[in-house]
Amino acid sequence: MSGFATRAAFDAALADLPMADGVARDAARARQNDLTKPPGSLGRLEDIAVFLAGWQGTARPALGQRRAAIFAGNHGFVVHGVSAFPASVTQAMVANFSAGGAAINALADSSGLDLRVVALDLDRPTADFTTSPAMDEAECLAALDAGASVVEPGLDLLVVGEMGIGNTTAAAALCARAFGGAAGDWVGPGTGVDSDGIARKVAVVEQALALHGNAPSTPFEALRRLGGREIAAIAGAVLAARQQRVPVVLDGFITCAAIAPLAAAVPAITDHCLAGHCSAEPGHIRLLGHLGLDPLLSLGMRLGEGSGAAVAVSVIRAALAAHNGMATFAEAGVAGAL
Amino acid sequence: MSGFATRAAFDAALADLPMADGVARDAARARQNDLTKPPGSLGRLEDIAVFLAGWQGTARPALGQRRAAIFAGNHGFVVHGVSAFPASVTQAMVANFSAGGAAINALADSSGLDLRVVALDLDRPTADFTTSPAMDEAECLAALDAGASVVEPGLDLLVVGEMGIGNTTAAAALCARAFGGAAGDWVGPGTGVDSDGIARKVAVVEQALALHGNAPSTPFEALRRLGGREIAAIAGAVLAARQQRVPVVLDGFITCAAIAPLAAAVPAITDHCLAGHCSAEPGHIRLLGHLGLDPLLSLGMRLGEGSGAAVAVSVIRAALAAHNGMATFAEAGVAGAL
Repeated sequence: MSGFATRAAFDAALADLPMADGVARDAARARQNDLTKPPGSLGRLEDIAVFLAGWQGTARPALGQRRAAIFAGNHGFVVHGVSAFPASVTQAMVANFSAGGAAINALADSSGLDLRVVALDLDRPTADFTTSPAMDEAECLAALDAGASVVEPGLDLLVVGEMGIGNTTAAAALCARAFGGAAGDWVGPGTGVDSDGIARKVAVVEQALALHGNAPSTPFEALRRLGGREIAAIAGAVLAARQQRVPVVLDGFITCAAIAPLAAAVPAITDHCLAGHCSAEPGHIRLLGHLGLDPLLSLGMRLGEGSGAAVAVSVIRAALAAHNGMATFAEAGVAGAL
Repeated sequence: MSGFATRAAFDAALADLPMADGVARDAARARQNDLTKPPGSLGRLEDIAVFLAGWQGTARPALGQRRAAIFAGNHGFVVHGVSAFPASVTQAMVANFSAGGAAINALADSSGLDLRVVALDLDRPTADFTTSPAMDEAECLAALDAGASVVEPGLDLLVVGEMGIGNTTAAAALCARAFGGAAGDWVGPGTGVDSDGIARKVAVVEQALALHGNAPSTPFEALRRLGGREIAAIAGAVLAARQQRVPVVLDGFITCAAIAPLAAAVPAITDHCLAGHCSAEPGHIRLLGHLGLDPLLSLGMRLGEGSGAAVAVSVIRAALAAHNGMATFAEAGVAGAL
């Protein structure tokens, strides 16, 4: 299992991304063209199968070991009233995950995902990023490492998700820093703040961007200063997955924002990622455009917890069911018919 | 099991559509608002659960008995060169369905759907609708009845799909007659004709519309003159499902076109229907607008066979997994927390 013990290890991993297996990908595309249907007629289901083939390194990819890793963290800036809910809800929802009663429990179960919940120092929120970096270097590395730890050998697919009261505010700050635009372009209602709440979120993001504006423009510094533990953990998980060529399904605005700093520096970081869905949080569709990702689902979901990505896994399962289960023209004895 | 032995029985069924159970629907919505998440944060998953509750008449809907019914038919107008494939492919694909090698076999399996394939007189294509009605009254009634026959008591969900070389042309004619517009607004490449093929399809649709332009403007006459056996069967299945309050998942352009004549006369016919997906066939999105349906998926699929609807069932399963599996605030002991 890889990890990020030092900032240099993280930077080195990001600078040396493995690529997909082109031979396996081509073989999967050839198989798709040989199945009993007009070529291309299964649309994105075909592309999903070919994508998984490339990252799993086999023409017949599988989902035997699939995992949803949900990271939870608390944020110092919530004192500025950016969320509709108190920070204690992060802990309450983690307890709900453990008891099996949350949306992600039901949805992971429905998609056959093994669920890992990683609560990161919930009783010790990050520092308020309007007055200092959210984390020191050791804290950020510990979070990245916690993310990497969920990527065990043999994993066929990884879903990443999060829980953290206030974290759409951190996500907006990361997006604005990574891809530009005004704070207001990236701030939305989150779990449900009103227009006053949105104005407070915009002000908090603007303060943070101003305070950290002259910091070194590296992915690590962005995560450390503007992120949070659950956000850095997602970045660590996505990068560790890439090192092991494990394909990843991203969830909503916050999971995508976690890799925004990485993608701004190294756009190819998203090559092993699928966007599970497009969230109702307005910044998400803009962010997906910057990441070059086309979401599989658009169901107006805005819960987080990996919920949208978990539903997307059911579509990915269908894609592989067709890819692996259908007959070829030769097998069906209708060679030349279609 | 209901049926449509006479034209009057069909007309009477369409004139007397049962409505959803408002009490069950309200109870399901109340449950959604009581689950451990911000209200509305699961987006369309919540709406799907509430929709199913209304039609199944229970606050806790289920998918115990779910069926995909695929109807196959052949069309007389294919002599005009409107398809990329010969009519013999309809029979070949039905054989493939029986052998278990087609996309719908894999996708129905993946979504836990019991698969019924109903081949309708494949060796006896309908008459060429550019010179006469596609079917006589008895043939159309037999097809409607064949559709109704798949709706057995106790069904929790019905997916409808089709196979029939050339049937995007019939679908375009039905749409133009039901909702107006030029033939070219409704004609597309289908399984893959080139621009010459599209021009031939437009010409065939225009001829058919002109020939039958003065016929009585009833749903039955539209199906009989411009439809086909598999198309009338779908209309019969959807109407029979409504009589028994069985919710339906529609597939692509042709399945939706099958109910276009019914919807033009009685818009409420779509109330018990979900649009499983938006097909790549360009007329489909226009048709969905006329039907008042918002597709669950948009994956660029264009195969037919019920394939898109079968994938959508995996999303519907996820919706019910959350609805039935999540804890309420009271159960989770986080009452008032969210």
